[in-house]
Amino acid sequence: MSEAPLTDDPRPHGLHGAKSLLLVNTGDGKGKSSAAFGVMTRAVARGWKVAVVQFVKSGDWKVGEEEVGRRLGVDWHAAGDGFTWDSKDLEHDKELARAGWALAAGIIGAGAHQLVILDELTYLMNWGWIDADDVLRKLAERPPTVSVIVTGRDAPAGLIEIADTVTEMRNVKHAYDAGIAAKRGIDY
Amino acid sequence: MSEAPLTDDPRPHGLHGAKSLLLVNTGDGKGKSSAAFGVMTRAVARGWKVAVVQFVKSGDWKVGEEEVGRRLGVDWHAAGDGFTWDSKDLEHDKELARAGWALAAGIIGAGAHQLVILDELTYLMNWGWIDADDVLRKLAERPPTVSVIVTGRDAPAGLIEIADTVTEMRNVKHAYDAGIAAKRGIDY
Repeated sequence: MSEAPLTDDPRPHGLHGAKSLLLVNTGDGKGKSSAAFGVMTRAVARGWKVAVVQFVKSGDWKVGEEEVGRRLGVDWHAAGDGFTWDSKDLEHDKELARAGWALAAGIIGAGAHQLVILDELTYLMNWGWIDADDVLRKLAERPPTVSVIVTGRDAPAGLIEIADTVTEMRNVKHAYDAGIAAKRGIDY
Repeated sequence: MSEAPLTDDPRPHGLHGAKSLLLVNTGDGKGKSSAAFGVMTRAVARGWKVAVVQFVKSGDWKVGEEEVGRRLGVDWHAAGDGFTWDSKDLEHDKELARAGWALAAGIIGAGAHQLVILDELTYLMNWGWIDADDVLRKLAERPPTVSVIVTGRDAPAGLIEIADTVTEMRNVKHAYDAGIAAKRGIDY
C-alpha cells in the first residue's frame, strides 16, 4: 500500500526547486481549462497574484470561472470577446488575436503576477494568427518568478519542448456520445 | 476556421439534457483533482451546493483548494486525514476508508448537494478497502439531481461503464523527470 501514489503528483525529497513552471494542458478531452482554473484557486490560496487571458470568445462558457475568479481577485481578461467563429472579417479576428497576445506578453513581461493562465492560446498559434516563435521566445524568456499555464488542443511541438509539465487530457468517454447536452454548472 | 473547436467541449444543438452527470477523471497525469476543483468553482458560480470528500490524506497537498473551497461555501470533508501511508495498522486505515465512503454515500443519498466531488476514491475501490459494488450501485442509483465527480488513477471498468464522461489525464512530460520538485502555489 505504501507504494501507491500519495496524490496525483508524488515526488521524492531531494529534488531541486524551480522559480516558476510552464505547464501545458492539451488533448481532445475535457478538463484542460478546468484544471488550469483549479490551479488558479491553489495559487490564490497561496496569496499569489494571478492573471487569466482567454483567447477565444467564451459566450456562455466559463462565465462561472470568470465570476469566481474575479471574486477571488484574479485579473481576468476576455481577450477573445470580440471574436466570432463565423466571422466574415477574418482580419478583424486576427487583429483581436494579436492584441490579446500583446496584452498577455505585457502581463508576463511585467512580472507582477506569479501565475498567468493563457486559456486556449494553442489555437491561435496553430492557425498562424499570432507569431508562434514570438510566443515561444517570450515564454522561454519570461521573468523567472512567473509561472504560466497554456491550454488548448494540439499543443505545438515547440511549446511542449520548452514546457516543464505537459498533460494530455484524453477523451475516453463523453456524455455527448450518448446525446447528452452540455450541462450548466458542470460543463459551463 | 469555423470548424475549429469553440471550446474544449463543443456540442451541436438538439441534444437532450441530463438531470445530473457522473464524471470520472483518471490516468497517471496531473490535473485529475485540479479539473474537479475547476468544475467546483463553476458549480459554485451557478449557486449550487457543493460537497468535497477527500479520501486520501493530503498533508500539505490541496490545502489551497480546501481553503478557497471553504471560502466559497463548499462543504469540505477530509475523510482521509487520519490515514497514514506507512501505517502499521492497516485495519485502522480501512476503517477510515469505510467511514469516509459511508459519509460520502450519505451526502449523495441525501440529495441536498447538486455536486459531490469524491477525490481519489478509485484507490480505495481498487485496494478492496471499500465495497466497489456498493459504490457503483449508490452512484448509479443516486438522486437524479446530484452530479458526481470521481478522481483517481486506474478507474475500475465498472465505474467507467456507468459514467457519462471519462477523461484520462495522460502524462506527456513532467517537471519531475527534470528533477524539479513540486512547487507550492502550482502543485499544491
